[in-house]
Amino acid sequence: MKIQYIERIAALRRLMEEKGWDAVVLSGSDPHSSEYPAARWKQVEWLTGFTGEAADVVVTADHAGLWTDSRYFIQALSQLDGTGVELHKTRVPGAVGIPEWLSSNAKVVAVDGLCQSVSAVEDMEAALAEGGHVVDVPDLLQELWEDRPQIPVSPVMTLDVECFGGVQRIDKISWLRKWMLIQGYDKVLLSSLDEIAWILNVRGSDIEYNPLVISYLLVSQDYVKWFVDKHSSGCAADPDTVDSFSELSMDRVDVEDYDAVFFALSDSGSDETLGKIFVDPSTLNHHIYKYITDCFPADSIVCGTSPVILEKAVKTPSEIGHLRQTYIEDGLAVEQFLYWLEQEVASGREVDEWEASEKLTSFRAAIPGYRGNSFENISAYGPAAALPHYSTPMEGSSVIRPYGLYLVDSGGQYLTGTTDITRTVPMGECTDLEKEDYTLVLKGMIDLSMAVFPRGTAGCQIDALARMPLWKARRNFGHGTGHGIGYYLCVHEGPQSIRYQYNPQPLLPGMVTSNEPGLYREGMHGIRHENIVLCREAGTSEFGDWLDFETLTCCHFDTSAVIPELLGPEALAWLNAYNEKVYRTLAPQLPPEIAAWLRAKTMPL
Amino acid sequence: MKIQYIERIAALRRLMEEKGWDAVVLSGSDPHSSEYPAARWKQVEWLTGFTGEAADVVVTADHAGLWTDSRYFIQALSQLDGTGVELHKTRVPGAVGIPEWLSSNAKVVAVDGLCQSVSAVEDMEAALAEGGHVVDVPDLLQELWEDRPQIPVSPVMTLDVECFGGVQRIDKISWLRKWMLIQGYDKVLLSSLDEIAWILNVRGSDIEYNPLVISYLLVSQDYVKWFVDKHSSGCAADPDTVDSFSELSMDRVDVEDYDAVFFALSDSGSDETLGKIFVDPSTLNHHIYKYITDCFPADSIVCGTSPVILEKAVKTPSEIGHLRQTYIEDGLAVEQFLYWLEQEVASGREVDEWEASEKLTSFRAAIPGYRGNSFENISAYGPAAALPHYSTPMEGSSVIRPYGLYLVDSGGQYLTGTTDITRTVPMGECTDLEKEDYTLVLKGMIDLSMAVFPRGTAGCQIDALARMPLWKARRNFGHGTGHGIGYYLCVHEGPQSIRYQYNPQPLLPGMVTSNEPGLYREGMHGIRHENIVLCREAGTSEFGDWLDFETLTCCHFDTSAVIPELLGPEALAWLNAYNEKVYRTLAPQLPPEIAAWLRAKTMPL
Repeated sequence: MKIQYIERIAALRRLMEEKGWDAVVLSGSDPHSSEYPAARWKQVEWLTGFTGEAADVVVTADHAGLWTDSRYFIQALSQLDGTGVELHKTRVPGAVGIPEWLSSNAKVVAVDGLCQSVSAVEDMEAALAEGGHVVDVPDLLQELWEDRPQIPVSPVMTLDVECFGGVQRIDKISWLRKWMLIQGYDKVLLSSLDEIAWILNVRGSDIEYNPLVISYLLVSQDYVKWFVDKHSSGCAADPDTVDSFSELSMDRVDVEDYDAVFFALSDSGSDETLGKIFVDPSTLNHHIYKYITDCFPADSIVCGTSPVILEKAVKTPSEIGHLRQTYIEDGLAVEQFLYWLEQEVASGREVDEWEASEKLTSFRAAIPGYRGNSFENISAYGPAAALPHYSTPMEGSSVIRPYGLYLVDSGGQYLTGTTDITRTVPMGECTDLEKEDYTLVLKGMIDLSMAVFPRGTAGCQIDALARMPLWKARRNFGHGTGHGIGYYLCVHEGPQSIRYQYNPQPLLPGMVTSNEPGLYREGMHGIRHENIVLCREAGTSEFGDWLDFETLTCCHFDTSAVIPELLGPEALAWLNAYNEKVYRTLAPQLPPEIAAWLRAKTMPL
Repeated sequence: MKIQYIERIAALRRLMEEKGWDAVVLSGSDPHSSEYPAARWKQVEWLTGFTGEAADVVVTADHAGLWTDSRYFIQALSQLDGTGVELHKTRVPGAVGIPEWLSSNAKVVAVDGLCQSVSAVEDMEAALAEGGHVVDVPDLLQELWEDRPQIPVSPVMTLDVECFGGVQRIDKISWLRKWMLIQGYDKVLLSSLDEIAWILNVRGSDIEYNPLVISYLLVSQDYVKWFVDKHSSGCAADPDTVDSFSELSMDRVDVEDYDAVFFALSDSGSDETLGKIFVDPSTLNHHIYKYITDCFPADSIVCGTSPVILEKAVKTPSEIGHLRQTYIEDGLAVEQFLYWLEQEVASGREVDEWEASEKLTSFRAAIPGYRGNSFENISAYGPAAALPHYSTPMEGSSVIRPYGLYLVDSGGQYLTGTTDITRTVPMGECTDLEKEDYTLVLKGMIDLSMAVFPRGTAGCQIDALARMPLWKARRNFGHGTGHGIGYYLCVHEGPQSIRYQYNPQPLLPGMVTSNEPGLYREGMHGIRHENIVLCREAGTSEFGDWLDFETLTCCHFDTSAVIPELLGPEALAWLNAYNEKVYRTLAPQLPPEIAAWLRAKTMPL
């Protein structure tokens, strides 16, 4: 089984020798810095067999190494065994990063600049310093990789404007052009796929879990050029319009080939009458950035943070209205699932994590507007829930027993929004430690939910609220407390977050963020309670303007594992009120037996 | 009365005309960036009559302006009235700073570079840009200012090493030299007075409230040169040593004239065999920095943050031991004062804020080792307590009535530490709003006191704990929650703080910081509850290393204005336990009648 990876690495080494490269560096990302790359860009997996999301590979004549962080150590050791590829641990004390490692092991380093960020290549170049350099070889593996998947060409949808926050693409383009005018930029190149989907009001299915279209977008005051390869144009929102490309054309968006972005850039760059071009190096790939620096005079390239990121994060009233309804429908699906799970397990039938996950998906799939899941369900019973990146296996997953804790983290993509929810379900008898952890994590989630804060406050300033109940018990969790969520876009988006680490972006009214503290004990149990909260205005006083959170998620928290004294009166009152509201909202739409079950589940503590 | 300022400004304008300066900029600081400058450097006050701490003045041929922030708006308008000096508000929307203002009003700008920071002059130079420049004129006012006070020459004390954390000056100097060796620096110039006092184990009385000695210190691997003007050398710690300078000399510290720092720098700079010099531009003045850039090759000057700041902030076990005892003694003085105040006011006698302040100082002065107050007492009754920078007038201060709230913020300098404490005292009947504010501020102070946090956490990450009870009621306060405190040094020191604003410095075990949320209602009342807390280790778990706070301050909080339901059970338990501990600690050392009174004051709620 592993022989294919040994052969592929050997083939790469022959290519390296032929070309005179001392080292090749490959990343696990795509040309658009996507969180989930399409099959075509799973270069690390093709070369080494490692399937984790975050890894880079370096191959030299006598060494092959894979750099990844602690989430993937166990998986990497298992998947790399027998391939000759060695694990290099990142984010551990004394870790040696790729640039530093290269500095003492290579002079000429080849990269696929399409799949490397601007900063990653800059770091390598700085480390190689004198005598060494980086060679940019787009699609470096092309010659070796037989049957390499093509760039996905799934059809493009242009949906009703209501699916896009009630804002027409021409108005979004006008907004961007006004920003460009104020800043003094003539052109903006967008390469981040969710930014492009947002501004063009298009969706696709080129990438798993993310309704995106692989493309670049070049916007000037005179034209909008969308670089995208499609065999068919897909459905349009307007029944009078034949297809989505015609609809885009009516809005004066020119559709060109994916690779034509290079011609367009060199055309633009050579036109001396034109002004500055703006790019965001945090998502732009090295290859295209270097191409721009070749085409344009240095003083006409401006690097910065794309304004689309913040504009997209602040949801419109139309989006917020749809989200409220979507989270209710999503909650109905989760409640049906939780009811089913409890019944099945109580009946003595052996339900495993995989079956549970599939069942949950089936409840979501029945919702009108469902377009798939927003990420791979995490369905984990007992110790599996403590694994930071557990992927439920289709065959041989654990059976969910009538005791202990079951964690399910899942979400849906709907035409009216993206959801994300985690519930940790006491399946029956729980240990005192399970109850303590369950309660402390819940108290943190509730304390953050109840926060009120002045306009201008960033997520990192209130992160401690979600952690303090755990901190007081000398417990903690290693991930962020909250991430931004797209609107029928990526389940993870910026610029805001609620994290221990510094992020100066203030929380703004209209931002939608997760609130998901957790606690993980290796070999024992894992707990996470996740609601999605909308930041909203909460009045003005003589002391300033105030913001707070509206909880969008509508699904009860099981109280059977709650230790009321540990929760404290304020959080307990919140919990009782929340569960009551969930019951009142959902019960009328649930079958009577599930409504009765939910009534019992939501009785005040 | 105001005519003198008009005359002085006119004289300055004649000098400007003679010299060809379009503008003169004067700052309110001294050559050492001190918080409280000595009389010699109160240039703003001499020129304009404004006595506030934070102000800069710009004079041109046809304009004289004073730049200050909202704390001083009322005071500035009153003191500047009739002088022709106009108030320029800083830190308000649309504020025009001095550099920007200069850019459209002057070409040639003269400054007293001794009293300007490196960055302030850089900002001016950048704003003046083409055609304009800054002229550095040390002691610019010298010719105009008759009877200008001299540089203070109060004697220098070298105290017992126990007063200096148990660390000898030779060991501190060795520590600095080791740091220099590791960093590759040959020399360090220190200009911040508390850093110099700390490393040399000396104290003085050149500056009000701060036991500092005006001087510069140049440390190399071979010598320590202390530049200081003194008529007498002062007392030494060692009874066998004649005086403090002899003691310093025995530790190979060379004492030279204050101005000799310039000769020493030019000597060092011209020696080409010597290496790099390290300076901290955040406290170094422009004049000496420019002098260094003239003496040294550019690549041998290294700017950075002085390592003394952090080393000084982390108190030694010896210092911590002394602080615990000192805060008990300081607490005894404050309790005696609070008892006295209550008795006097209850007796019907008219005690005003000034008398109360003097009485408090007299109780502190009776403590062995007392060396003065650590700042000007804030003694404020009723609406006065809401004024952000209230200075109690000697004549005509308000009488403290047997109702409402009295705020007293004060501290002492002792041979065994510096204290700082604020108590807000309900003098009798209080309004519901006073009680609410009193309770919410107290809850914030207690919630922060109870915090536990992982090693690596900065104050800005837990600041929200002290504010959330107020925030939930849409209330807030405009100052920081906590500042570092020196050890028989400045009452305000860095690098740590507990603030809403970003400050990445983690709280470290041994750091001493204030915890002082407040609430201010103009025309009504002001509340601040301030304890001093010591950061300490709080165990290790599988989730990491933990820190928490030990409260050093030992003085009860009056419970008569507390609304228990608003405080909540956890904070209420903390308050009862704290007051009980204060009683048990202090009662044995108090006269019986005060002990009995304190017993009543500290009964659990």
